[in-house]
Amino acid sequence: MSRYLLSEKKMTDFKKYDTFIDQNLDASLAELSRLAAQPSVGAQKWGLDECAALVGEMLAKRGFRVEVIPTEGAPVVFAERKGMSDKTLLFYNHYDVQPPEPLELWETPPFEPSLRDGKLYARGVSDDKGHITSRLHALDAFLAADGELPCNIKFVIEGEEETSSVHLHDFILANKDKLAADACIWEFGGVDHREVPMQYLGLRGICYVELSVETASTDLHSGTGGSIMENAAWRLVWALNSLKGPDEKVRIPGFYDDVKPPSERDRQLFAALPEVAEVYKKQYGVKKFIKGLSGGVELRLAEVFEPTCTICGLTSGYQGPGSKTVQPAKASAKVDFRLVPDQHPQDILKKLRAHLDAEGFADVQVEFLGGEPPARTDPDDPFIKIVVDSASEVFGQPMEIVPMVGGSGPNHPFVHDLGLPVATAGLGYPDTRAHAPNENIRVDLYVKHAKHMARVIKEFAK
Amino acid sequence: MSRYLLSEKKMTDFKKYDTFIDQNLDASLAELSRLAAQPSVGAQKWGLDECAALVGEMLAKRGFRVEVIPTEGAPVVFAERKGMSDKTLLFYNHYDVQPPEPLELWETPPFEPSLRDGKLYARGVSDDKGHITSRLHALDAFLAADGELPCNIKFVIEGEEETSSVHLHDFILANKDKLAADACIWEFGGVDHREVPMQYLGLRGICYVELSVETASTDLHSGTGGSIMENAAWRLVWALNSLKGPDEKVRIPGFYDDVKPPSERDRQLFAALPEVAEVYKKQYGVKKFIKGLSGGVELRLAEVFEPTCTICGLTSGYQGPGSKTVQPAKASAKVDFRLVPDQHPQDILKKLRAHLDAEGFADVQVEFLGGEPPARTDPDDPFIKIVVDSASEVFGQPMEIVPMVGGSGPNHPFVHDLGLPVATAGLGYPDTRAHAPNENIRVDLYVKHAKHMARVIKEFAK
Repeated sequence: MSRYLLSEKKMTDFKKYDTFIDQNLDASLAELSRLAAQPSVGAQKWGLDECAALVGEMLAKRGFRVEVIPTEGAPVVFAERKGMSDKTLLFYNHYDVQPPEPLELWETPPFEPSLRDGKLYARGVSDDKGHITSRLHALDAFLAADGELPCNIKFVIEGEEETSSVHLHDFILANKDKLAADACIWEFGGVDHREVPMQYLGLRGICYVELSVETASTDLHSGTGGSIMENAAWRLVWALNSLKGPDEKVRIPGFYDDVKPPSERDRQLFAALPEVAEVYKKQYGVKKFIKGLSGGVELRLAEVFEPTCTICGLTSGYQGPGSKTVQPAKASAKVDFRLVPDQHPQDILKKLRAHLDAEGFADVQVEFLGGEPPARTDPDDPFIKIVVDSASEVFGQPMEIVPMVGGSGPNHPFVHDLGLPVATAGLGYPDTRAHAPNENIRVDLYVKHAKHMARVIKEFAK
Repeated sequence: MSRYLLSEKKMTDFKKYDTFIDQNLDASLAELSRLAAQPSVGAQKWGLDECAALVGEMLAKRGFRVEVIPTEGAPVVFAERKGMSDKTLLFYNHYDVQPPEPLELWETPPFEPSLRDGKLYARGVSDDKGHITSRLHALDAFLAADGELPCNIKFVIEGEEETSSVHLHDFILANKDKLAADACIWEFGGVDHREVPMQYLGLRGICYVELSVETASTDLHSGTGGSIMENAAWRLVWALNSLKGPDEKVRIPGFYDDVKPPSERDRQLFAALPEVAEVYKKQYGVKKFIKGLSGGVELRLAEVFEPTCTICGLTSGYQGPGSKTVQPAKASAKVDFRLVPDQHPQDILKKLRAHLDAEGFADVQVEFLGGEPPARTDPDDPFIKIVVDSASEVFGQPMEIVPMVGGSGPNHPFVHDLGLPVATAGLGYPDTRAHAPNENIRVDLYVKHAKHMARVIKEFAK
């Protein structure tokens, strides 16, 4: 059979599902809008229970057996429905979103979804609520056309992904049988700036901390305190400076001990990917990169295979307009460390504390706000091949494989405890603005993701 | 005449004024409450014109010729009234106040004056509105008893003291004739922790700047940006760290060039003052001092004769509860330098810019938010002697002389352009909380300040 004929045959197979997906798009977007209008801000513990209940209802009305399972943090929504084959596909998603601040930069309010110019804008439409509803839309196509699903489908939808999935690891360990599956589709994915669908494999780990200092019981007049008393803001600046200098090297002893350099296969896969330097510069409005990087495979390898120490926020003293002559009694910083194999957040946390103590910053408190270890899936796993190849019909070409990405997520227990290959696929695109004002999705990619998922499920079910 | 008899005689002289001050206290506190209820936050440009107008009315109703004179910033209230002698005493005050934030730490709202336990609480009651009304209360005593003032009295009441008196220096240069006088009473003063009235002579200068960095057009996901793109918060931390290290030495080349060390007379005067180490520790909740200081004359000299570099505020990225994985595109810090004779703010500003450029921080913007040079009055000036000695009857002892204080104010043009001796006197006390939540005055000290001022004016008028 020629490649052409195979393609023709497949198109016929999927016509009924694709038609359903196209014809019922408005209803699916309406469902997404309802979901995105429900705030579920992890960091602010805002609307999480309500959102979990809403997600549960959405699954239950499709015949899933649904459990909304409490944890010490936000509840986890678990759902399963049997299908025709014995195989089981597990979808991992999350219903929590990033804080919407700074609010003044949103063109329309973050929790009032707004459809304009083929895009739907709202906090969480891309990360991650659009992925949930697009996948449900694909399942609806099977249920409408065939009355059943091609294979067993499970969902595990957590509410703490944006706050480092603090309780998910324990949840998975406690529910290994319930979550048993053959493969997993991750919560995100999408096309790059060329419109090429990307297979992102492997996530960095994270260790997120808040550093805080308190030097006095009250803010001081800076005329009194400046010459003779400790300033919390200065203590914080010096402690931070001890973590990393302008050479971008993290100064915590042992920080790099467990770092595995990229393999030759990683280098090959990245070398096959297009240049991103100019794309990044334009997208983020930056003039240059750090560490002397200019582009090419070295930029891409640095982006994902080097661990980081990032200040995510600083706060101390007077921050309003004009001047206030005050010496702050308190100062704090949010800091995230992105970890690469085989670093571990608990180990980094221990080394951070030891470093601060050794450098004379025993007064700097470290609060652990969450973390997870890095994990990777083999780019040559058969399930990855299904997901990569079945993109061809929808996107006009197979996915390109990115063996590791810079972001983090709780894939470690899925890979190492449940033993699953984890593939990414999604509706993201470079201007999707996840974690930033004006987060949005493109409706055309929403449809493509649903059609891609229909093909993955069918092929996997065989 | 024995000392005892002199004292007896003086008491008789002042009885009518003291009686007036005591019997009309409620009316004066009501006037202060009205003034403090009028917000006049310099940094936020809130209520300044309204407050200037109110102060003008208060003076006009006492027969002063009042001018509310516009500047490029907040207006200056100038007022004068002739008296019996040819001598002219100039009062310098200000009607602007510090921002009230953090609001949640106030026991009663900052602009709703609240009298409890012999104290009046509100933003600005101590710094500086209480000084204005207490002085007016003393003048009322003369007007009520004698129908006229003992000498010519002028007031210059500005509205930018809390924002570094940006336009006052030019105002004074442009109005030297109008402001001509023989001596000046400064806006503040008070008793120390022993209840001893203090004569504070000399103020440090100040150079207040905002440092800011912008590294990208939008905040980045920290998973993307951390490894390859500049982080505004890190740039700021490193730039700040280049200004001063944990050894507390300012690293800007030339910063200390013009610093005059304290004289032997300064050292003597400070040695005569009581120990403050334990007082400060208790008052501010600090365990130790910086620079290895432990107390004694060295602590006191360091407090006022060493220039500072103080971070007054830090702001960048996410500052809310929990975690947000964002790499900030913007970061800024408020920094004040307290200057000692003969440093000059414009010179420090130039050296700061040159230093940042030389250290690789050309990307760090420096905004000058205000400044003034340091200035001192000779502790042996005859006017200082009048103010110091006339405290005896009211406070039970003469004032103790502090030859230099840590705070700043625009005394330089008064001392160097108008050629006046500048004495301090006031109603402050250690727990007055100027610049902090729950700012307050003690009513007993309010009364004492009015009585002290009555004596100073009478003695000066001779």
